[in-house]
Amino acid sequence: MISREYLLQLDRDDPLAAMRAQFVLPERTIYLDGNSLGAMPRAAAERVRRTLDHDWSQALVRSWNSAGWVDLPQRVGDKIGRLIGARAGETLACDSTSVNLFKLLSLAVKLRPGRNVILSDRENFPTDLYMAEGLSALLGGALQLRALAPNEIESAIDDDVAVVSLSHVNYRNGALYDMAAITRRAHERGALMLWDLAHSAGALPIHLADCDVDLAVGCGYKYLNGGPGAPAFLYVAQRLQGQATTPLSGWFGHEKPFEFVPSYAPAAGIARMQVGTPAIISMSSLDAALDVWDTVSLEQVRAKSVRQCEHFVELVEQWMPGRFELVSPRDSARRGSQVCLRHAQAWPIMQALIARGVIGDVRAPDILRFGFTPLYVSYADIWDAASTLRDIIDAGSWQHAEFQARAKVT
Amino acid sequence: MISREYLLQLDRDDPLAAMRAQFVLPERTIYLDGNSLGAMPRAAAERVRRTLDHDWSQALVRSWNSAGWVDLPQRVGDKIGRLIGARAGETLACDSTSVNLFKLLSLAVKLRPGRNVILSDRENFPTDLYMAEGLSALLGGALQLRALAPNEIESAIDDDVAVVSLSHVNYRNGALYDMAAITRRAHERGALMLWDLAHSAGALPIHLADCDVDLAVGCGYKYLNGGPGAPAFLYVAQRLQGQATTPLSGWFGHEKPFEFVPSYAPAAGIARMQVGTPAIISMSSLDAALDVWDTVSLEQVRAKSVRQCEHFVELVEQWMPGRFELVSPRDSARRGSQVCLRHAQAWPIMQALIARGVIGDVRAPDILRFGFTPLYVSYADIWDAASTLRDIIDAGSWQHAEFQARAKVT
Repeated sequence: MISREYLLQLDRDDPLAAMRAQFVLPERTIYLDGNSLGAMPRAAAERVRRTLDHDWSQALVRSWNSAGWVDLPQRVGDKIGRLIGARAGETLACDSTSVNLFKLLSLAVKLRPGRNVILSDRENFPTDLYMAEGLSALLGGALQLRALAPNEIESAIDDDVAVVSLSHVNYRNGALYDMAAITRRAHERGALMLWDLAHSAGALPIHLADCDVDLAVGCGYKYLNGGPGAPAFLYVAQRLQGQATTPLSGWFGHEKPFEFVPSYAPAAGIARMQVGTPAIISMSSLDAALDVWDTVSLEQVRAKSVRQCEHFVELVEQWMPGRFELVSPRDSARRGSQVCLRHAQAWPIMQALIARGVIGDVRAPDILRFGFTPLYVSYADIWDAASTLRDIIDAGSWQHAEFQARAKVT
Repeated sequence: MISREYLLQLDRDDPLAAMRAQFVLPERTIYLDGNSLGAMPRAAAERVRRTLDHDWSQALVRSWNSAGWVDLPQRVGDKIGRLIGARAGETLACDSTSVNLFKLLSLAVKLRPGRNVILSDRENFPTDLYMAEGLSALLGGALQLRALAPNEIESAIDDDVAVVSLSHVNYRNGALYDMAAITRRAHERGALMLWDLAHSAGALPIHLADCDVDLAVGCGYKYLNGGPGAPAFLYVAQRLQGQATTPLSGWFGHEKPFEFVPSYAPAAGIARMQVGTPAIISMSSLDAALDVWDTVSLEQVRAKSVRQCEHFVELVEQWMPGRFELVSPRDSARRGSQVCLRHAQAWPIMQALIARGVIGDVRAPDILRFGFTPLYVSYADIWDAASTLRDIIDAGSWQHAEFQARAKVT
């Protein structure tokens, strides 16, 4: 039986406990939505202030060189690369996850001529499916999206599949794919493997190079704490970079962007995957946010996250038996860093929680999501969040009219 | 004969003189590079600070609603729309200019089936040509880019041309196309018209709706002062929006993004041209930067810009006859808000100017660019910039070794 005292002891022993001081968080709030928008690192805010007060306003256009803006996408990319098991020069921070999906799906299709299927999971994050639909429509139906149930994927990789495109952790229920096994299976069948790491980068150890992953994309504003709408990232394995092209062949991916020549020629390496001018203010925030990881290992983060999710599930099962359906895998080895509970009144329950300072979110129609971000969530927070949920369920306070109004959050 | 006293008198009479106080600029600097990176409006910095200190760090994910992040691309788009003669609901702030070119070129080609040519000007900004190349390559050569000399464009619009894609003002020499005439000619020949407003939005009055322009893109970080790499914008005429689709069909352009349904269905109106999550910090800066225009008319800005360019050219011709070739049109009606001078030693001359506090830039191999931004450049600045240039030319001080090192700036 877990006690609050036991959780407080875990906090006292927690090697990550000091990390919370590196973040700015509102008072009297337990923030369990870092899987949607990560909290603000102090260093990110300081860096943005410097970008305004010095780099933009004082050094002006000279900052492209003096502040290193021109190479920022590659430097930030390599910082992310270290968190996802990529080699130097394989990762680039740029654009949005959606735009990066388009680039890498097009690339995959080009690299596997004669194969005309993008294979995905119909429970994938919608934009992953939508971008494949858009590419397919542009190519006049010569390319098809085949979206199946998660458990049908492995057996469906046949000679028509150019690329298997999956999210490592499912956004809605937290289910975690076996990256090594599925990548191996895709390769055995001659397909490329593209992983969307939006819900796993910064949440658990990832070994792209060791798993021989071909392509990956991910998000800068969730577990990487880069700020709202922070630039996303993409990864292309070194062995594919020589053949890598993108239909979004913009000037920032040109071999000599400042020579302004009329014909496109791709830059060497991962830099060729850039398109237009990077959003420097947002990118600077992400750059500084990543320094939080300098003193932290993802093994530590994962160990704490597993324990936090586990204890949260235990408390919900113990205190509120039969009130929720656990839609996340019960086995933590098959779960990312979130716990998802189904309840027909998910929306008003979440509104009641938020009103009491426990912030999670809802995925329509009926799933409450709780994301656990060990850098700034304590073990005691788990107890307090679960007991707040219990109070709301016991008292039926989610039935109050004020909580019946829906709110959309991402 | 112009005198410094005459220019000081123009400053005293200038209805825009007070605008400079709304910008933060370095001391002892004449900034003639706002056509590359606009100066920082005080309001932009204040807004970014609020985005950090309140919206992100305190309100967190709730800011998607409470701070209006979710509709920001449309609100910012409409503010830009007012500066380019668009109707409400025709303009959207999103992505980079390059990505937006891809969206609108794909759309144009879809709207003109049976026509397989993108017609452009070979002196267009490179990314405009590169993105057309990328789309053409993706479509397997079914679509061609035809890039001609500027004076060949009008007569080259034939039945094969799906879209004429031009930059309103040329980035390298400041030449200004006649938007009304060329748009009319494109329509007479059955083609769509796409204008890139990167070097004209915020520099001169633009009348997209009155000229019946179909499509446009532009940049947020030049004359709109949105900050380094600020989100770009796109415009789709209302009459085309019902048929408008984008191959970059991301979740932010979905009709119900927060319902997370597995199939794509476009949002109503211009919102469908969105792709992924917007870069909120950078977009917030742009949003506030646009409020500078609340009390200013583009007619005033254009009148001052024309006078500034004119006097700068006169001083160069008078003080440094035969030392530079004017590559910008001499007729101000055919010129944007920049003056471009050719000199074999353009790079070291610009380095010498920058060392003395006059910031312009160079476009390889031999063009000095001076951009005039009437919101924060005074008439006296014109005299001081030209006389600094004269001193450098007269003394040959650009020959010093320190100025011979090249610098790349954008």
